[in-house]
Amino acid sequence: MPDATDRRHFLKTSASIAGLGMLPNGVMQSIQAPVPDRSVNMSHDGLAFAPKDYAALLQRITADGKTVEDYYSQNGAVAQLEAACARLLGKEAAVFMPTGTLANHLAVRALAGNDRRVIVQHESHFYNDTGDCAQTLSQLTLMPLARGKATFTLADVEEVVGRTASGRVATRVGAISIETPVRRKAGEQFDMAELRKITGYARKEGIRLHLDGARMLLASAYTGVSPAEYAAMFDTVYISLWKGLNAASGAILAGPKVLLENMFHTRRMFGGALPQAWPYAAVALHFLDGFVERFRAGVQVSEEFIRELDARGGVKAVRVADGTNIFRIPVTGIDTARLAATLATRGIDVAAPPSDATMMNLLANESWARRSATEIATDFLRAMGKV
Amino acid sequence: MPDATDRRHFLKTSASIAGLGMLPNGVMQSIQAPVPDRSVNMSHDGLAFAPKDYAALLQRITADGKTVEDYYSQNGAVAQLEAACARLLGKEAAVFMPTGTLANHLAVRALAGNDRRVIVQHESHFYNDTGDCAQTLSQLTLMPLARGKATFTLADVEEVVGRTASGRVATRVGAISIETPVRRKAGEQFDMAELRKITGYARKEGIRLHLDGARMLLASAYTGVSPAEYAAMFDTVYISLWKGLNAASGAILAGPKVLLENMFHTRRMFGGALPQAWPYAAVALHFLDGFVERFRAGVQVSEEFIRELDARGGVKAVRVADGTNIFRIPVTGIDTARLAATLATRGIDVAAPPSDATMMNLLANESWARRSATEIATDFLRAMGKV
Amino acid sequence: MPDATDRRHFLKTSASIAGLGMLPNGVMQSIQAPVPDRSVNMSHDGLAFAPKDYAALLQRITADGKTVEDYYSQNGAVAQLEAACARLLGKEAAVFMPTGTLANHLAVRALAGNDRRVIVQHESHFYNDTGDCAQTLSQLTLMPLARGKATFTLADVEEVVGRTASGRVATRVGAISIETPVRRKAGEQFDMAELRKITGYARKEGIRLHLDGARMLLASAYTGVSPAEYAAMFDTVYISLWKGLNAASGAILAGPKVLLENMFHTRRMFGGALPQAWPYAAVALHFLDGFVERFRAGVQVSEEFIRELDARGGVKAVRVADGTNIFRIPVTGIDTARLAATLATRGIDVAAPPSDATMMNLLANESWARRSATEIATDFLRAMGKV
Amino acid sequence: MPDATDRRHFLKTSASIAGLGMLPNGVMQSIQAPVPDRSVNMSHDGLAFAPKDYAALLQRITADGKTVEDYYSQNGAVAQLEAACARLLGKEAAVFMPTGTLANHLAVRALAGNDRRVIVQHESHFYNDTGDCAQTLSQLTLMPLARGKATFTLADVEEVVGRTASGRVATRVGAISIETPVRRKAGEQFDMAELRKITGYARKEGIRLHLDGARMLLASAYTGVSPAEYAAMFDTVYISLWKGLNAASGAILAGPKVLLENMFHTRRMFGGALPQAWPYAAVALHFLDGFVERFRAGVQVSEEFIRELDARGGVKAVRVADGTNIFRIPVTGIDTARLAATLATRGIDVAAPPSDATMMNLLANESWARRSATEIATDFLRAMGKV
Repeated sequence: MPDATDRRHFLKTSASIAGLGMLPNGVMQSIQAPVPDRSVNMSHDGLAFAPKDYAALLQRITADGKTVEDYYSQNGAVAQLEAACARLLGKEAAVFMPTGTLANHLAVRALAGNDRRVIVQHESHFYNDTGDCAQTLSQLTLMPLARGKATFTLADVEEVVGRTASGRVATRVGAISIETPVRRKAGEQFDMAELRKITGYARKEGIRLHLDGARMLLASAYTGVSPAEYAAMFDTVYISLWKGLNAASGAILAGPKVLLENMFHTRRMFGGALPQAWPYAAVALHFLDGFVERFRAGVQVSEEFIRELDARGGVKAVRVADGTNIFRIPVTGIDTARLAATLATRGIDVAAPPSDATMMNLLANESWARRSATEIATDFLRAMGKV
Repeated sequence: MPDATDRRHFLKTSASIAGLGMLPNGVMQSIQAPVPDRSVNMSHDGLAFAPKDYAALLQRITADGKTVEDYYSQNGAVAQLEAACARLLGKEAAVFMPTGTLANHLAVRALAGNDRRVIVQHESHFYNDTGDCAQTLSQLTLMPLARGKATFTLADVEEVVGRTASGRVATRVGAISIETPVRRKAGEQFDMAELRKITGYARKEGIRLHLDGARMLLASAYTGVSPAEYAAMFDTVYISLWKGLNAASGAILAGPKVLLENMFHTRRMFGGALPQAWPYAAVALHFLDGFVERFRAGVQVSEEFIRELDARGGVKAVRVADGTNIFRIPVTGIDTARLAATLATRGIDVAAPPSDATMMNLLANESWARRSATEIATDFLRAMGKV
Repeated sequence: MPDATDRRHFLKTSASIAGLGMLPNGVMQSIQAPVPDRSVNMSHDGLAFAPKDYAALLQRITADGKTVEDYYSQNGAVAQLEAACARLLGKEAAVFMPTGTLANHLAVRALAGNDRRVIVQHESHFYNDTGDCAQTLSQLTLMPLARGKATFTLADVEEVVGRTASGRVATRVGAISIETPVRRKAGEQFDMAELRKITGYARKEGIRLHLDGARMLLASAYTGVSPAEYAAMFDTVYISLWKGLNAASGAILAGPKVLLENMFHTRRMFGGALPQAWPYAAVALHFLDGFVERFRAGVQVSEEFIRELDARGGVKAVRVADGTNIFRIPVTGIDTARLAATLATRGIDVAAPPSDATMMNLLANESWARRSATEIATDFLRAMGKV
Repeated sequence: MPDATDRRHFLKTSASIAGLGMLPNGVMQSIQAPVPDRSVNMSHDGLAFAPKDYAALLQRITADGKTVEDYYSQNGAVAQLEAACARLLGKEAAVFMPTGTLANHLAVRALAGNDRRVIVQHESHFYNDTGDCAQTLSQLTLMPLARGKATFTLADVEEVVGRTASGRVATRVGAISIETPVRRKAGEQFDMAELRKITGYARKEGIRLHLDGARMLLASAYTGVSPAEYAAMFDTVYISLWKGLNAASGAILAGPKVLLENMFHTRRMFGGALPQAWPYAAVALHFLDGFVERFRAGVQVSEEFIRELDARGGVKAVRVADGTNIFRIPVTGIDTARLAATLATRGIDVAAPPSDATMMNLLANESWARRSATEIATDFLRAMGKV
């Protein structure tokens, strides 16, 4: 579990290259970083700003005085972000949430209604890493499926629905929550063919569908399936503002208006109505437009980098089957702490694994587009002593 | 209920007076506003920054690169703030909460334990304005006392304890939560003599005590009772970072280490573990040191202002008995919208009541110390057409 | 709080008088007690059978082999009882519950739905004597009204509805539960005029209504308002099978079919689906037909008894204003334990108060009709040494 | 799912054989059935009395006037039964519950305490057939193990404990509930060697243990492991009064005094405090003494019957591996409805499967000891047309 102290700050080069990929098209002119950034982050899904840099960015974003504060997470920049996300995801409405945990929880709480069983992946974040919030606070019964796997099958779902119907006391499956890509499976995606079968079945049976799409925007950069196409298969969709959109916190839950228009009450009841959330919303809004395109540019560089590592240094990266932005390279016999230190001097941030590790995780994101694959690979192979 | 659009931005004067009261001693040199602020806010408990000004301040606070980010609201600037608040309140430990609603809720949830009845004021924020969170999410039974009043009595408490003991099924009163000053009673304070009797009784009976001290720091500026003295009567204390400490959000819950040291788990389970809360914590930390002293300076100006309004213009302010920073002035026959607009040109922010209102609320806070009472009263009386 | 040891068994006379009032018309011939009962019970709402007598009655009731067992409190004698109660109360459906606590709880749980506030009398059994079941198990917020009184007013209800609407987080009043007669007010009835106003208001506002009518059948014997007339003002009605209908346990909840037809599932989920409840249902069914008429006969004897006590012995009974079957007689200076013992030899059962008590409670019920008021008063006045 | 209509009444023979196996030693003289019963029940775990016969038995049991009524399921015959069960199970205390559902629920609710995860068998009654009561009413998270099997392993338990520890929010496994024999697995028993490993591990880790022993008494008749030996491995044990002890309803929960002595409050809060439960308790008490011995006598007859079916008629029964009192016989090509009708004329009660069934379930119980195996097998083979 990483903590605050291992989160490296980025090296800034002095080269005066305006904006680059990190600024979305259209706002480049008005909000220009004083000094362009050529660092490459390989340890996070996003840009992982240090407070100094985050605050400087926030200052630039708000300098024109046009950012309007929200009031208990309503109106102002928050409403602006909600509208933009609803459009991106093709949903009627969207509501800001302080965390993804709350977004997932309030979604399934609302979708389940009086049908208290909710099917989830055994390996999902929601099932494993939220302290059983849905069970403890909303009295839902999570039904975990497919231990050890990213994907459960329609047959699995049918078995639970059938078993539920056989109980001596009537209970019903009210919702299915699916996480993709799956955090605990190194970004592996839920199988798309199975997904289509399951969502079709659920619609037919009146079972509601939630997508834990914390990282779905970055998945779009890999699959070419647009966020709205993913979202269309589900009633509600959560995306993280923190994982890739670089806000210091926050989440968006999108879905039907009838379900979401009064959810700000439930959010406040849970203690999640931040009096002012615009310091998050304004940054997410800044990065939202053009996100998938920028991320794809980063991915292209990372894919070329993978090829060059092999071709030029014989370093063969290992991919996750059906994976997204996480890949691994062999580091047996390499002093990983020293490798990380050397790379840091070249503006490349990696999370060093323990000294006896055989593999090291690298993450692609939009920062890769700040430099060419060849440059990055050269720095990397040199630091490994391979060229 | 105010909304984002009626929250005025402050007028900045061009006078080059460094720092003034708004910056705490010791940080004045390093974090100086480029242009000093001479505006007076009469509509909020705090300084009510516009996003532009908040971001600029945050940028100055973090510019030295010493602000360390937290990780899911642990460590870094958050831990620094928690330690400072624990010291101020004389408690072993403190934990950051995203909102006051969650701070109050998790406090009584933890204090009550298996004794599920919790005594509250009938007029308290917790009883009226949190969507019954304690009942809905924690299955607590709130027992409201003293309808229409700020203070309940020891006799009221004893009646509930006795009635509870008489039930056919055993239940117990586990905690008493007291709000002071009381938001729904215009800042009226809980009677101190009754408070001492009740807290003494509760200690003896093993009933735990929580203070909803959202505005307790500003009460200290009036009563001279220090935050730590107040806090000593209770097991746990919540203070708002937003109401007076000018953070865009956030709350602190202070109390015994044994109760709070693992509360970050519960906070996360509720969806309240902001991935990064330092944009709130750093600002609160900035204003914490010397807060009561600065607020008192503002109070002194406001008290002199009240005297001058009367002496020079015959405008007699009405005070709340046992009140704090809210007072009212008569506005019968005055065009309140125009009054507010005129005052705004003088850097004075008031919340205009409806045109048929007979009284207007004014709030004292630390911004009053930016100017002299005579200057402010002159501007005010002129705008009212009284001088 | 009485316990098993103070519940006296009835004296049986040897006179061979068939049936008497205790057997409902139509079953007198088939289920005849071998020896008629001339005892008078003044300590309970019902006949308070000893196990020996209850079992003997049950044996007679079932001897013809026509009593069909239920299966998990469905079908058989239970369904027969449910149908009979639904008819008596003028409701579409009725469901057996093991206890009144569960009947009240499941009623308000179902009626409240998503509107979690439920108005109750401060003095009601449900608010005071059920261990906060509604709050603890169903997350409802009970809103207690009219401390110390049997009746709350429409104005009280409107105040709660208004306050609820003013909260910062939306909550709604979903149901009103009214107990009448009120157990904790010695059988005092809820004011009928106020009841009509409140139920009219609630219908208009879409607030659902529950009647805790544990003792409503016996109230009908006093007021002449039929059970169905009472019930018509409410959505759901609970009556006790134990309080007056002489079953060893059990309750009936009557109301709309749509609300009750699947409630057996909830009953089982709560652990209240007795595998076989017919030993209760068969006895309640036995006493149901003609109950109000028989009880009224007992009441008439008790009223005449009250008059004779005064006229012949100067013993003035004290009545509860708007009360029902509980009245009190002065016992200052009387050895109450000895009085009870003497009365027991005459087949009269009273609950002796402590030796320093000034008043003793007497309860009217159908057993009074077994003898004439003159006979009973003579026995009573002699035992008191008044004649 | 059987219903009331398929529960056959027993044929009574006129032979004047006193008492037989169905009456426990010591009470035979005082409570003698007027006419001995020679019927054999093959469709239930117990004697499955019709109301007429149950009431007659209850009348005989209570005829001496020594049965004392309980008061809200405390004292009297209920307390007598609780004490007897505590002795039988070797526990400090026992508490009567109206149903097994409530007994299991309140046990795990109490055992789990603040450690909200509870391990259960995927195939257990508690997980499948109680409407998710533990999740819905007590906010527990049931962790189901070993889908499709009677037994889970220590490795399964360790995996859950490890996964729980790995969550981002702290949760803990508070209890393990084990059902044996397993109702949904046709009476198959939990593997004893694995049970010893798991209970040993749980003790070491501070995880509490509950035994759903609804049918454990009859298992003792097969295994020779005494009820107290089973119970010693667990903190709490539930046994059904209905399944084998022939009470019309009821359950016993036995365990440590500190856990159970105030559980009557929780029972009442759940609506499970029957005002009088003695009509169940008295019957269970009647059958408790000598139960295992009588059941074993019935088992011996059933085992001999199985051998005779094969030897004399070539009918080969199929046993459940590690099973208890349920076995199956082939009925392909047999008119099962007619078979059942023919057997009924011989006083043998079977539950006829659908006409196209290939196997028919038969259950052993103490009624088998009323006749010799040879007699029963003769009747059976004749009815099948095999002799």
